[in-house]
Amino acid sequence: MEYQKTSDNTIKRGAKKATYNKEEIHAILDACEICSVAFLINGKSYVQPINFGRSGETLYMHGSLQNRMTNALIENGEACLSVFHLDAMKLTRSAFHHSVNYRSAVVFGKVRELQTNEEKLEGLKAIINHFVPNRWDYCREPNESELKATRVIAIDIETASAKIATAPPNDNAEDRELDYWCGTIPVKTVVEFPVSDTTMKPGAEIPQHVLDFYEKRKKGF
Amino acid sequence: MEYQKTSDNTIKRGAKKATYNKEEIHAILDACEICSVAFLINGKSYVQPINFGRSGETLYMHGSLQNRMTNALIENGEACLSVFHLDAMKLTRSAFHHSVNYRSAVVFGKVRELQTNEEKLEGLKAIINHFVPNRWDYCREPNESELKATRVIAIDIETASAKIATAPPNDNAEDRELDYWCGTIPVKTVVEFPVSDTTMKPGAEIPQHVLDFYEKRKKGF
Repeated sequence: MEYQKTSDNTIKRGAKKATYNKEEIHAILDACEICSVAFLINGKSYVQPINFGRSGETLYMHGSLQNRMTNALIENGEACLSVFHLDAMKLTRSAFHHSVNYRSAVVFGKVRELQTNEEKLEGLKAIINHFVPNRWDYCREPNESELKATRVIAIDIETASAKIATAPPNDNAEDRELDYWCGTIPVKTVVEFPVSDTTMKPGAEIPQHVLDFYEKRKKGF
Repeated sequence: MEYQKTSDNTIKRGAKKATYNKEEIHAILDACEICSVAFLINGKSYVQPINFGRSGETLYMHGSLQNRMTNALIENGEACLSVFHLDAMKLTRSAFHHSVNYRSAVVFGKVRELQTNEEKLEGLKAIINHFVPNRWDYCREPNESELKATRVIAIDIETASAKIATAPPNDNAEDRELDYWCGTIPVKTVVEFPVSDTTMKPGAEIPQHVLDFYEKRKKGF
């Protein structure tokens, strides 16, 4: 299944790296803890990082009642957000061809504020389980006063696109004899072994869902 | 020296994590290969990742003549961009207090398009040396036709702010007896040893500026 190509999401530069495949785009989103969201205030465009969750074709975010970004997104009614993984830095003999390997996605969606506690809990569950899979089952659910202090928004994906760059560095043929170095510096975002908080009882075991997450991410996202 | 606090950059949520210190914000920018830029097209707010450079209080970006983002930024005349490093995931007994340690910065600036080849080369030099320090001296400079195909923009920083979160996870006192795990999963973005391209002569030495970059970043950004 592919997202529809519109004037918003159609990739013109580097079109060979483009994908509109839903599964590929979901995988890129799910491997990212943080996205960057664009929002509009008084006709001016802002961007801010924020954590998020995904359930099917819906993304979830939350913020305090006074959060400028959440409030602007609700008012705007639509959102554009992006995620990005850096996989390698590519150095070429020519300055012009320096580039990176990466996986990135841009999503366009309609924003709605979740109203009932039931809906808000569903959204927050998606955010917590996106952070660490299955985590929701191993922590205390938000209570009434926490839910009251939080706005939860759903972004229903309308369309999206991604770019996946995996090629080696590429100098022009006529530059290959130049006496400069050309190569790749791999980049990885890894997690290290989980550390129990000092408020935990001595010898506390690290739970399986946390160990599973560590195993999955210790060699990179 | 601090950036001026305006309605754009003043941090209200988590104000204890906020900094307006120029050196601290420059350091966060310089440790990021990629930023997320907001831009406006027909009254709609977009975000896209892009590489950049910094020289003093000016950031530089480039794009092809048809690049939608570069062209929108030039037309808008102003830009908001953000960078983000994830340092740790903090899991608490309550869903509500899950959070992350991070270093992030948001920059607001005025956009100008660089016109002369001399200006454009200065901008591209800042971008290449931001990518890997000193790299500009060890690659072929852009030629006339490459410069013609590229728009280079300068963003003069007007103001900026950053947030630096380093605290341990923090549950409410009344939650600390709950039988759930609380702890930290450290996250690092590391570079691996540089790999010479297959087009290099066998046994080609990796230059010192690349080894220096590897040493600086092998344990994290």
